[in-house]
Amino acid sequence: MAATNPTACLLVIGNEVLSGRTQDANIRFLAVGLGELGIPLREVRVIPDVPRTIIDTVNEARAKFDYVFTTGGIGPTHDDITSECVAAAFGVPWEPHPVAWARMDRSYRQGDFNAARQRMATMPRGATLIDNALSVAPGFQIGNVYVMAGVPRVMQSMFEWLAPTLRGGPKIESRAVHAIALPEGVIAEGLGAIQARYPQIDLGSYPFYRPGGNGVALVAKGTDVAAAEAAIAEVTALIAGFGKVPIPGEPEG
Amino acid sequence: MAATNPTACLLVIGNEVLSGRTQDANIRFLAVGLGELGIPLREVRVIPDVPRTIIDTVNEARAKFDYVFTTGGIGPTHDDITSECVAAAFGVPWEPHPVAWARMDRSYRQGDFNAARQRMATMPRGATLIDNALSVAPGFQIGNVYVMAGVPRVMQSMFEWLAPTLRGGPKIESRAVHAIALPEGVIAEGLGAIQARYPQIDLGSYPFYRPGGNGVALVAKGTDVAAAEAAIAEVTALIAGFGKVPIPGEPEG
Repeated sequence: MAATNPTACLLVIGNEVLSGRTQDANIRFLAVGLGELGIPLREVRVIPDVPRTIIDTVNEARAKFDYVFTTGGIGPTHDDITSECVAAAFGVPWEPHPVAWARMDRSYRQGDFNAARQRMATMPRGATLIDNALSVAPGFQIGNVYVMAGVPRVMQSMFEWLAPTLRGGPKIESRAVHAIALPEGVIAEGLGAIQARYPQIDLGSYPFYRPGGNGVALVAKGTDVAAAEAAIAEVTALIAGFGKVPIPGEPEG
Repeated sequence: MAATNPTACLLVIGNEVLSGRTQDANIRFLAVGLGELGIPLREVRVIPDVPRTIIDTVNEARAKFDYVFTTGGIGPTHDDITSECVAAAFGVPWEPHPVAWARMDRSYRQGDFNAARQRMATMPRGATLIDNALSVAPGFQIGNVYVMAGVPRVMQSMFEWLAPTLRGGPKIESRAVHAIALPEGVIAEGLGAIQARYPQIDLGSYPFYRPGGNGVALVAKGTDVAAAEAAIAEVTALIAGFGKVPIPGEPEG
């Protein structure tokens, strides 16, 4: 990773991931999307719908990372408390956002913009809206904190809207090679030597277990594409040196 | 959650989840497994293969939670540094574990128990082994920290071995009801009132979008089964009061 890349932290807010009710689908989407923008995700925290926890975690993360993204907890029900907790974290009032309020008021039939839905138009003072194509209820940004929905397709729509507004660094590129029937323990020493020669890239080793055969995938990541390709060329030679067939790219499926 | 339930934190260690290369499959498995043991998962942190980050996060988590579980970073390659970082966190030597060492030495052919594989038998002084049915390389426990593999099926085998040794609390039970074509914003106020009457349970509201129809699932979780069932009975009446059909349980698929 180049020193010029801004860093990101993701806060997944919601009891449903911690209880195992819901399989998270947001971490990977944002990890990939942020990597393409050159904003490497450096930490994810999954936390419950507990005000003190949300407030403290938001404050810790926004001090430590360039960007903080949150997913979850911005709907109309009693367990949706992200927005008011972010206001508390910033020490600003939580109040009707004039644009969001007017838009939601217009979109509901007379009487349907009730107190619960009004909470979705109530935001920390100074928040900027994050729109999306699927729902009239927006997310918002305040400082370096970006508050998004937890429902994956709504979150994804918000992130697509948001992406062009984020200032990234050089894109994180990835190059890979894999081999069948080659134990990690056999190539570990050689891999370590290659990693030491390319400190600017992250060389990862990932065993896989698939019907087509067990093996190991070696992945070089970083903003220096030439270094990633050179490292993978060395890994390719290492694999061949053990009498195995180096297969370019990640294993399929 | 009863006050008698011990708490757990999971540390997912590995660049591959943060880069989006790998879809995490361990959070949900452990969330469910720990819930059944009455050890609610209260936080998950996904962190990179960076020594300072691992050491600090382990120390923060073990001070704050009754149980800390880690997944990832205990293989033979240069990016597998969890074990030595846990030793550093506890301030104890990282040294050959006599039982693990002897077992691995026996299982490899002459000369194959190389320096890289010997790292998998090197552990914090005082560690107790966590066995598994799939691999000769064990995880380990030290203090309240349980270090497991990142490969899901190996981790699952380790957790199955481990589960009977963990001291849990009352099981976290779950009761649910759902409805089609009922917006969250309509029932939010009634749900909030029900949650207020049952402070000992967590009442969650989860919109879903499926081919069979969009709707919302209401889930009551806690150790007090009678309270969870009473809360869901009230939610069922609430749904019917809005002219919708309450369907017991979670939506399928």
